[in-house]
Amino acid sequence: MFTKKIDHVGIAVKDASSKLSLYRDFLGLKDIKVEELPERGIRVYMIHVGESKVELLEPMNDQSEIAKFLQNKGEGIHHIAFNVVGIDEAVELAKQFGFQPLSDSPKPGAGGTKVLFLHPKTTGGVLVELVEGHH
Amino acid sequence: MFTKKIDHVGIAVKDASSKLSLYRDFLGLKDIKVEELPERGIRVYMIHVGESKVELLEPMNDQSEIAKFLQNKGEGIHHIAFNVVGIDEAVELAKQFGFQPLSDSPKPGAGGTKVLFLHPKTTGGVLVELVEGHH
Repeated sequence: MFTKKIDHVGIAVKDASSKLSLYRDFLGLKDIKVEELPERGIRVYMIHVGESKVELLEPMNDQSEIAKFLQNKGEGIHHIAFNVVGIDEAVELAKQFGFQPLSDSPKPGAGGTKVLFLHPKTTGGVLVELVEGHH
Repeated sequence: MFTKKIDHVGIAVKDASSKLSLYRDFLGLKDIKVEELPERGIRVYMIHVGESKVELLEPMNDQSEIAKFLQNKGEGIHHIAFNVVGIDEAVELAKQFGFQPLSDSPKPGAGGTKVLFLHPKTTGGVLVELVEGHH
């Protein structure tokens, strides 16, 4: 398995629309797509920047994982995602290195991708997402 | 002012060498340069990934800004930096948008760059760094 780029940086926000002045107007990032993931209770603002994206993660309800993050830590950077080749080996490889996968195998992500998260307690406090494929 | 890419993601670590297995060995990122910034009390491990970098920020002493971050929040993602064109207008522009610059003008950064930070209280909890130039 290897990575060629940062896929995105996920940022937890209470209200994405109030954050757009920073990314769209101040930084000049105009290519923004919005997608709802009701099964995770998240609305995602995908802001394209070069080969990567900033993803604003807004909770759709109080049970959302992002709602819980906001309650505990407040708004801020939530995770970093790397675009990888060979995600199907990632679970075994991560375990060999001592990184704890948050699922038993890669899960379907947005737009036909496969994704896997690693527990931040095993990766130096960083919630790491691995993404294979494009969206 | 506008941005074309994520310049880097800064990650606060107690001990960078123990984190290299994640980035170098698991993710396969072999292009790593180390630079010391004694005036800020920081040792930086610049890990290249695509057009961006992951920067591991390790304190060189207890007075370092990173030592204080580690004491307060522990290891984890510290800031996101955007490569920008037109940083000399950034201070005035940021103020117009209500983002608080952490210095009165851009400061010299590593390798001949100019950098400016924005206070996270004004940017949705995200410490944003603007970088002009390459290093």
